[in-house]
Amino acid sequence: MTSPSPNPVLVEALRGGTVESQHRGALAVVDAQGSVLLALGDIDRAVFPRSAIKLLQALPLVASGAAERFGLSDEELALACASHGGEPMHAATAAAALARAGQDHTALECGAHWPYHDASLKALARSGNEPTALHNNCSGKHAGFVCLGCHLASDAGAEARRFLRGYVQPEHAAMREVTAAVQFATGFDLAHTARGTDGCSIPTYAIPLRYLALGFARVATGDGLSTGHAAAAHRLRQAVAAAPQMVAGSGRFDSRVMAVLGERVCCKVGAEGVYCAALPERGLGVAVKMDDGNTARAVEVVMAALIEALLPLQGEAAELLASLSEVQLKNWNGIEVGRLRASAALRHGLEPVIAA
Amino acid sequence: MTSPSPNPVLVEALRGGTVESQHRGALAVVDAQGSVLLALGDIDRAVFPRSAIKLLQALPLVASGAAERFGLSDEELALACASHGGEPMHAATAAAALARAGQDHTALECGAHWPYHDASLKALARSGNEPTALHNNCSGKHAGFVCLGCHLASDAGAEARRFLRGYVQPEHAAMREVTAAVQFATGFDLAHTARGTDGCSIPTYAIPLRYLALGFARVATGDGLSTGHAAAAHRLRQAVAAAPQMVAGSGRFDSRVMAVLGERVCCKVGAEGVYCAALPERGLGVAVKMDDGNTARAVEVVMAALIEALLPLQGEAAELLASLSEVQLKNWNGIEVGRLRASAALRHGLEPVIAA
Repeated sequence: MTSPSPNPVLVEALRGGTVESQHRGALAVVDAQGSVLLALGDIDRAVFPRSAIKLLQALPLVASGAAERFGLSDEELALACASHGGEPMHAATAAAALARAGQDHTALECGAHWPYHDASLKALARSGNEPTALHNNCSGKHAGFVCLGCHLASDAGAEARRFLRGYVQPEHAAMREVTAAVQFATGFDLAHTARGTDGCSIPTYAIPLRYLALGFARVATGDGLSTGHAAAAHRLRQAVAAAPQMVAGSGRFDSRVMAVLGERVCCKVGAEGVYCAALPERGLGVAVKMDDGNTARAVEVVMAALIEALLPLQGEAAELLASLSEVQLKNWNGIEVGRLRASAALRHGLEPVIAA
Repeated sequence: MTSPSPNPVLVEALRGGTVESQHRGALAVVDAQGSVLLALGDIDRAVFPRSAIKLLQALPLVASGAAERFGLSDEELALACASHGGEPMHAATAAAALARAGQDHTALECGAHWPYHDASLKALARSGNEPTALHNNCSGKHAGFVCLGCHLASDAGAEARRFLRGYVQPEHAAMREVTAAVQFATGFDLAHTARGTDGCSIPTYAIPLRYLALGFARVATGDGLSTGHAAAAHRLRQAVAAAPQMVAGSGRFDSRVMAVLGERVCCKVGAEGVYCAALPERGLGVAVKMDDGNTARAVEVVMAALIEALLPLQGEAAELLASLSEVQLKNWNGIEVGRLRASAALRHGLEPVIAA
């Protein structure tokens, strides 16, 4: 990250009419053949994709037959691709997915944390209870890993037990399937790249934005994927579009955008300012990383500006995306004190890919 | 902020051994005569200091005689300089300060929000109650403004009422005193700089880091301040050192550092990645601004590295600051997944000012 030419400023935070803070980053727009339609900043530096690739990590759950075997619903599949807010509907759906494989929350290896969703946190506190692993934002993904492990175990006889525990380890049979799916989809060699441990304890592999975007272009089109993965990608996109409230939650970007745009966009945020999206009608994949890791406000503005550029939008969809690419900031008294907005460099940079 | 040469990377976030995210910024170390001992990045761009200058904003509370008139305690004066976590001790101290002037929480114009301190938020939720303006992180500062207004009103006869309400407005008599104190201390012309509205609804004026650092060098030494402001600065530094738990709260940087270093450092964080500090034994002031506005993790690492460089530290103090300038990051299972650390550019840049 000590490149002589730093990544461009993509988002500005204004107070009054003055730029108070700014966020640099890089993004790639790529088609399923790997052609780069747009690159802003350095798209060849490997970045940890974190939760932005949960859909890729869920491909084996469907492609293996586990999802069909256990009869997972749209909600449960969408939750497998989610970083959710720990709302009651999310915790209940994770529990339901585990129950289909005869498991419960004690099978989850993601750790427990309080709900990210503010009202759900306070309601849980009021109830006098503590959070469980079901409230972890990754519980749906982990429930999917548990289902995959149970499926693999079913053919393993006396060996079955080892498929159920330790699935967060890179060498576990289920995690090997997950890692292989990410490698196949992105076409990037994960055996020779940096590996870190994610917040939920599974491995995360550093992948350049160019390859992350390619992976999501393949998800968008099915091109370049195995038949099984292409069908799984299609099934997961459908599930997410059918149950967008599962992917993030009340008031959250991914849920709001997909509730309005349906299957036109399949987007997913990741920690440390990463975003990936598949745009089927354009046959494109998108990947973004903010240098400063800002997920709380910056990367959503970039993704909103990207969607505005890449898709023709009208009515409610146009209004929603406009409100997300330039955001009013209010203080504790409800007074508007500033704005978040896509920078001129980002708006100008997107011009070559604007939808006709 | 579209300078051709961007500010240097001051902090790196690593996952495993790989840099995952990075934070750029600028800092100034200045003496009370305005000599710049160290500048990293652009120290002449005006930035909103936000809550980092609460001590300067509290100077009129003491210099006017209001603090003495109402008998404000160390705790109450420290809280006037605070961005606190809304712990019960903070809310109670704000209420006590208001009561000394015959007022209560309804006089506060900062708005209400839930405590930033996690356990206090949950305890309040469990109690079934809602937060009041006393829980606002700025309630102590606002209680000070109310006391100042009551003091000014006491000589105003029939006009008194207008000194009590509307104190967040720039033209209010109390706020004019506050703004004048900031201008005198920093030596920067606030009449001709950008003005924004802060989170607590008072005005915030854009000031270059060079002048913010000068203001804190003057606080450190008294040099260049009026006799009244110099005495007030000394009183406030004493109060903060005597009651450091009031300035931020349990587990927070400013409280932890000042609990160990006492009057050797008087430091204060502000929103959007700003930090200011006075270092009396070196006669220096310090000001920092992160480009990306990151207060949550980045700017504290910079301030810790600055204190390590500027003050000879031993024992508990050395250990504490070392743990704050290179921070272990753990995940939900308590596994260490990475580190926050001062960048090589920052460590190298600080070499010229390292204490003998």
